[in-house]
Amino acid sequence: MGTELLLGEVIDTNSSYLAKVMSSLGVDVFRKTTVGDNLSRIKTSLQEGLSRTNLIIISGGLGPTEDDVTKEAAGVIFQKKLIFDENIFKGIQRKYTHHPIPRKAIIKQSMIPEGATIIPNSVGTAPGIIMEEERKTVILLPGVPEELKAMVPRIIKHLSGKISSGQTVIKSRTLKLFGPGESQVNKKISPLMSKTNPTVALLAKKGEVHIRITAKFTSEEVDHRIQEVENVIRGKWGDYIFGADEETLEGIVGKLLIDKNFTISVAESCSGGLVAHRLTNIPGISASFLCGLISYSNEAKSRLLEIPPELIKSKGAVSSEVAQKMARQARALINSDISVGITGIAGPTGGTPQKPVGLVYIALSTEEKDICQKYHFPGRRKMVKWKTSQAALDLVRKYVLGISLEH
Amino acid sequence: MGTELLLGEVIDTNSSYLAKVMSSLGVDVFRKTTVGDNLSRIKTSLQEGLSRTNLIIISGGLGPTEDDVTKEAAGVIFQKKLIFDENIFKGIQRKYTHHPIPRKAIIKQSMIPEGATIIPNSVGTAPGIIMEEERKTVILLPGVPEELKAMVPRIIKHLSGKISSGQTVIKSRTLKLFGPGESQVNKKISPLMSKTNPTVALLAKKGEVHIRITAKFTSEEVDHRIQEVENVIRGKWGDYIFGADEETLEGIVGKLLIDKNFTISVAESCSGGLVAHRLTNIPGISASFLCGLISYSNEAKSRLLEIPPELIKSKGAVSSEVAQKMARQARALINSDISVGITGIAGPTGGTPQKPVGLVYIALSTEEKDICQKYHFPGRRKMVKWKTSQAALDLVRKYVLGISLEH
Repeated sequence: MGTELLLGEVIDTNSSYLAKVMSSLGVDVFRKTTVGDNLSRIKTSLQEGLSRTNLIIISGGLGPTEDDVTKEAAGVIFQKKLIFDENIFKGIQRKYTHHPIPRKAIIKQSMIPEGATIIPNSVGTAPGIIMEEERKTVILLPGVPEELKAMVPRIIKHLSGKISSGQTVIKSRTLKLFGPGESQVNKKISPLMSKTNPTVALLAKKGEVHIRITAKFTSEEVDHRIQEVENVIRGKWGDYIFGADEETLEGIVGKLLIDKNFTISVAESCSGGLVAHRLTNIPGISASFLCGLISYSNEAKSRLLEIPPELIKSKGAVSSEVAQKMARQARALINSDISVGITGIAGPTGGTPQKPVGLVYIALSTEEKDICQKYHFPGRRKMVKWKTSQAALDLVRKYVLGISLEH
Repeated sequence: MGTELLLGEVIDTNSSYLAKVMSSLGVDVFRKTTVGDNLSRIKTSLQEGLSRTNLIIISGGLGPTEDDVTKEAAGVIFQKKLIFDENIFKGIQRKYTHHPIPRKAIIKQSMIPEGATIIPNSVGTAPGIIMEEERKTVILLPGVPEELKAMVPRIIKHLSGKISSGQTVIKSRTLKLFGPGESQVNKKISPLMSKTNPTVALLAKKGEVHIRITAKFTSEEVDHRIQEVENVIRGKWGDYIFGADEETLEGIVGKLLIDKNFTISVAESCSGGLVAHRLTNIPGISASFLCGLISYSNEAKSRLLEIPPELIKSKGAVSSEVAQKMARQARALINSDISVGITGIAGPTGGTPQKPVGLVYIALSTEEKDICQKYHFPGRRKMVKWKTSQAALDLVRKYVLGISLEH
């Protein structure tokens, strides 16, 4: 696997995942190294690492093929023989009764350095291995991300005894905003951004801005310190913050619709079904999401949504009038509480000086009110589609939460 | 940036990109190292690297802030002072007339190690830098992926003089299949997989199988050697190979529809608009894609697509009868050449012993024939949606190409 990483054929996500876990435990990560599936190079870098640090985590190279040599390298460095472990062998055999694995492959994965601690592999075959000597710990993990992740709780438990209480830990929390740009957000929170602990950093992500609060304190204190900064930020940007950390805009909107018992339908043109797709990613959404009408051609707008051809002719398919009519018609067709109508120009062609690529109208129709907003999204086709879906979902979020719908 | 990588907050894509470029030039990549934004640690790892190898490429740490210290570290190692370069200063000032950058930031980015070669930054601000001494070359590149990528042609030109002709290069080509599983593909091409040059590797990706051919030969010979192996694989799996390298299934299907002048409509239930979304990602698709009807609720199926409630009651919403009726009705509504009807159970709830989660029916309706296929896709909600969209797009591909539609 190391070789594939060095050829650039696979992107390494394990190391950043492990780095995050270690930081959250208060373990400083000083270096990451990638070497090929080569016994002598693995040995060299392991030896170099042990001369610098107390803990090394290696992922990959535990598999059944001949170029998997991590255990062999660690064995040489720690001067431990690899010993056949019958329990592991039988466990793998049992697990794969229905998809038998060659005996030789199972044997290779059952060879464990003498005296090592075994981390069972609940997902795949090769177990993780912890080797310790004096104050040095080397942890060997499989390269398959799902297998590696499943072993992390065991590693945390193992290491937690070695990390003294009162130790400082690094934690971070990310608040996610839709609407204002990075520089606007920057202006209002710049005093926070010049502080050093917690630090506050801004990240422009596609169609959203993330504010990341990172704090390094004792584990007793760290959450409180992050919360203080979060409160200040929410005081300034509360209505625009749709979620935090792993939350997504569609997840938040889907949950709001389900929890508050709203039904919704969408009539999409330039976004091409992306709003419906994102909403239908949310488990349980069938209680709220009734239908989507992707009226891509003008004829489809007329046939499916009864948009009068004269209206399209006089105002243009990309106009607030058509967006509003799309939303109203979709709501009338299926009788949903909320309906969204979207029309715009995703590009790369189809733009004019008056109606350039990126011009999008999004209408929201409900029993109590109809509104329509005009946007201009920079970027290429997929980005225009994405930002359109962001704006549409955020409009629904604000409506359901009773937040003002003004731009 | 190095610090963010070590905290796991950003995933490193630059190093795999650079590794791929270097491999294609015949440069063996022996190691990747990540260190924090720390002068002494950067110096140490640079020194270690120079003791092992002739070429080091560093990305990141050229920016305007105080923790950007890569140039400083390289300057110390090569014993070169950083000198203010007025041309770079003026160039950045000119480029950012409309969004002025603080003078101090521009000055920092205009400081260049004495005698270094400059790589202009066509995208952002900080230039790349090439430092050379005897047989050692160190290349410093910005960490922003777009800026780094834009500098690669210059680097290739610079290095190509040092790489003697007839040098072996590594190239790879990936063939992408939909339909058969990894083990099925494996069986038919296993003789190829035991060879060493070119090597053939199988990768199971979500909803597709990739066959990667990698060859190491002289630049004159390498393409031909890859082609030979590709021909053998196409002989066995031709109909299932939808594309290669960076091509996507939706890109291939979109292009086929446009080139062959077919119009299409889709009626989706469990896939929730994903087929429409993927097709509408393709520029120019508005010539072919007429509309999508996402009839998520049973009522929507009846109201939008006139599926008789009795049919849903007797056969179930997830049935071949309903899928076929959805396809036929969508085609009748908008008069498209092709229509796809999709109904299934995406999960996590809604499954029964007779109709489990992952059961999906996909129908294709055209003037000449109507067919319907039954699938059972393992995995969670998003994966079921994804695989459904893969199967639907592949069905369209096969129809348009005149390939047999049998499972």
